[in-house]
Amino acid sequence: MSFRTHLEQVVGQVEGAVACSVMGFDGIAIDTYQVNDPGLDLPAMLVEYGSILGKLKEAAAALQAGLVTEVSISTDRLSTIARLLTQEYYIVLALTPEGNWGKARYALRVAAPKVKAELG
Amino acid sequence: MSFRTHLEQVVGQVEGAVACSVMGFDGIAIDTYQVNDPGLDLPAMLVEYGSILGKLKEAAAALQAGLVTEVSISTDRLSTIARLLTQEYYIVLALTPEGNWGKARYALRVAAPKVKAELG
Repeated sequence: MSFRTHLEQVVGQVEGAVACSVMGFDGIAIDTYQVNDPGLDLPAMLVEYGSILGKLKEAAAALQAGLVTEVSISTDRLSTIARLLTQEYYIVLALTPEGNWGKARYALRVAAPKVKAELG
Repeated sequence: MSFRTHLEQVVGQVEGAVACSVMGFDGIAIDTYQVNDPGLDLPAMLVEYGSILGKLKEAAAALQAGLVTEVSISTDRLSTIARLLTQEYYIVLALTPEGNWGKARYALRVAAPKVKAELG
């Protein structure tokens, strides 16, 4: 299976999902599957969030708070949930504020090990 | 009612809750109610997370992604959910990874306007 198939599966099973992406902490997306245009510059947003995720990962490590596994950011227009795959990559799902949050976290938790396996 | 009463109510109704705090983006806690010691330097962690929240708030504003309303960070040892109250303050709840996440988000959503009212 390709990355794309996993991303499509995540987006397909979460009500309100807008896009799903496998990204590197360097800000470069490996693959993105986008279904709706929420009127936002989503790629730019994901890159910006990615740089914040990176800082956060370092901060958490320094504090020995454990390994960061998941980070979510909600605005009044969009929610994003990111799940770490490796020290270099993460999978991120964007959904509308009315979207199914519980399902989104679950879908990412299930998809993460599969996508990780593809990263080889 | 005081801040403390609201914080106690949040912690009391969420399974796995460890601490709840009203904090400023300057890193100073107005009030904290802590029930369990998860073996972490929780106050230091909350301050560190707060500075990341601040950066994130700016990034989201710059991207016109809307007003950041909620941010969560999960590690393998602790989950934290922060909900913005004003441009200066936020309420944050820490819970164990096994804690009730849905209830935690709900409790913060209900408590936020009450705590905000106390901020005057």
